[in-house]
Amino acid sequence: MARGKFITFEGPDGSGKTTVSTQVVERLKKDGFPVILTREPGGIAIAEQIRNVILDPANTAMDDRTEALLYAASRRQHLVEKILPALEEGTNVISDRFVDSSLAYQGCGRHIGIEPVMEINRFAIEGNMPDYTIFLDIDAETGLERIHKGRTYLDRLDQEKLSFHMDVWNGYRQIIDMYRDRMIIIDASREPEQVIEDAYQAVKEILEGNR
Amino acid sequence: MARGKFITFEGPDGSGKTTVSTQVVERLKKDGFPVILTREPGGIAIAEQIRNVILDPANTAMDDRTEALLYAASRRQHLVEKILPALEEGTNVISDRFVDSSLAYQGCGRHIGIEPVMEINRFAIEGNMPDYTIFLDIDAETGLERIHKGRTYLDRLDQEKLSFHMDVWNGYRQIIDMYRDRMIIIDASREPEQVIEDAYQAVKEILEGNR
Repeated sequence: MARGKFITFEGPDGSGKTTVSTQVVERLKKDGFPVILTREPGGIAIAEQIRNVILDPANTAMDDRTEALLYAASRRQHLVEKILPALEEGTNVISDRFVDSSLAYQGCGRHIGIEPVMEINRFAIEGNMPDYTIFLDIDAETGLERIHKGRTYLDRLDQEKLSFHMDVWNGYRQIIDMYRDRMIIIDASREPEQVIEDAYQAVKEILEGNR
Repeated sequence: MARGKFITFEGPDGSGKTTVSTQVVERLKKDGFPVILTREPGGIAIAEQIRNVILDPANTAMDDRTEALLYAASRRQHLVEKILPALEEGTNVISDRFVDSSLAYQGCGRHIGIEPVMEINRFAIEGNMPDYTIFLDIDAETGLERIHKGRTYLDRLDQEKLSFHMDVWNGYRQIIDMYRDRMIIIDASREPEQVIEDAYQAVKEILEGNR
């Protein structure tokens, strides 16, 4: 049996990844494609436990590199327990975020650097990069507007977040330049219906072997 | 103030690391040296939580690389929260196990390979390798005898463990060859008193700046 395709959805906060990927997968399922949608920790017990360590609000002292290693560990387990078995039985896998998110958020948002974060992720994924990545492209201003929902006053924490999001946004620009071959860039500043339609057509082409 | 020395104790199971390092540190404290003994997770909340994920008996499906990433994450947090602050205030730090254990156990025992495991640990420790490593050297036969306490019949699990321990033992031989400059090799097949005495003298020389 042919191995399934592995496709990820990426993009900065406010780009609509979760809504778009959910809608796209629903349409593909109706079309009869064997496809699953997942995102870390994906119901994998070990990955869920790791996520709890990352998100525990008591863990304010978590070092940025500890966090990056924990995301890589969670990714590894999610990959070997869920993504690879599905691909091997011929199911297509769509993942809402994967390696690129760590490169953008830990590598650039946390200033560890793209290459060091890629190194630990290479260890984690052992060559299992996505076949294609649907990148939901949104300009920084629109993304931030969506996150902050039109507020005009930003407090200190908001300002910090703003600077973090700008770094993530700039990180994604570098990452789409680094991985042009697998990137499918979709203008996500438009109405959701248009974005979903374009993303759906792109993924359908991949699954039909026309891309 | 002079930065403290960072010294690790390493060696295969049955080499007596914990007993020897404990005794050595007690004597050094009596001598008046500023010194602490630690081992991962070292009472660091985040590292303890990570350790719980690794050791949870329900997690039988844990992948070897997930485990290696979790050990690296725990090491990172232990380093930044406990080891580095102590070293910076001039306290000497003795750690019962550190990077070399991952190279031997995950790299060789789990067959991931020394170099890939070193890569994720380079990310975790950012150049903070031990100044010296006291390697408690024991031949494989004596080590295994101590672990199995003279039993002659080994069941399937014991046999698996035997093969794992032999791989770890062989791993340590490679590691002491790779890092000759910082390795102080002590014959640990002798009586504990002799081993403790030699280890104590070696560490004392380091702390006095005579090595």
